[in-house]
Amino acid sequence: MTDILSDPDRAEKLAPLLDTGWAETEGGAAIAKRFKFPDFTQAFAFMTRVALHAEKMNHHPEWTNVYRTVEVILSTHDAGGLTDKDIKLARKMDEAAPHA
Amino acid sequence: MTDILSDPDRAEKLAPLLDTGWAETEGGAAIAKRFKFPDFTQAFAFMTRVALHAEKMNHHPEWTNVYRTVEVILSTHDAGGLTDKDIKLARKMDEAAPHA
Repeated sequence: MTDILSDPDRAEKLAPLLDTGWAETEGGAAIAKRFKFPDFTQAFAFMTRVALHAEKMNHHPEWTNVYRTVEVILSTHDAGGLTDKDIKLARKMDEAAPHA
Repeated sequence: MTDILSDPDRAEKLAPLLDTGWAETEGGAAIAKRFKFPDFTQAFAFMTRVALHAEKMNHHPEWTNVYRTVEVILSTHDAGGLTDKDIKLARKMDEAAPHA
């Protein structure tokens, strides 16, 4: 099992994600971001790219799609908070949506 | 624009959907269903099939995926309620997930 991030590790790894629009939520147990695309096709293409990464990592987002927006929540439920898996998946999402 | 379903039309068209697990929500302005799959891959494969239909129909669901579940809400916001587009998309979803 992946361990929850230690406080210094967390601060260091979260900082760049907060800069790209991620926010802490659920009392710090999760991070969330709202991605907005030009249209549904691009929103769903993003989801497809991320789905492949998520399955490969065996770490899956909670996400809601409404037309051209995708709202994502990341947390490691087994660990009860944020782990490296969430950081990695958040980075992959930002890579998959450089302009969203 | 597609018109809201008339009461008799609505009753007739909703009945078979209620039998497959759809429920009226938002004061009757929407229908919702929770699909559950064996795993994430199958949940996302369902979403992919539905996404292609949705884009073709130019009518899109509000949907949330958490691992192997997909929760869907259908409504025609332009019309302010349920229309034939929602009925059609609901049927397509049931066809795309015969066992979910």
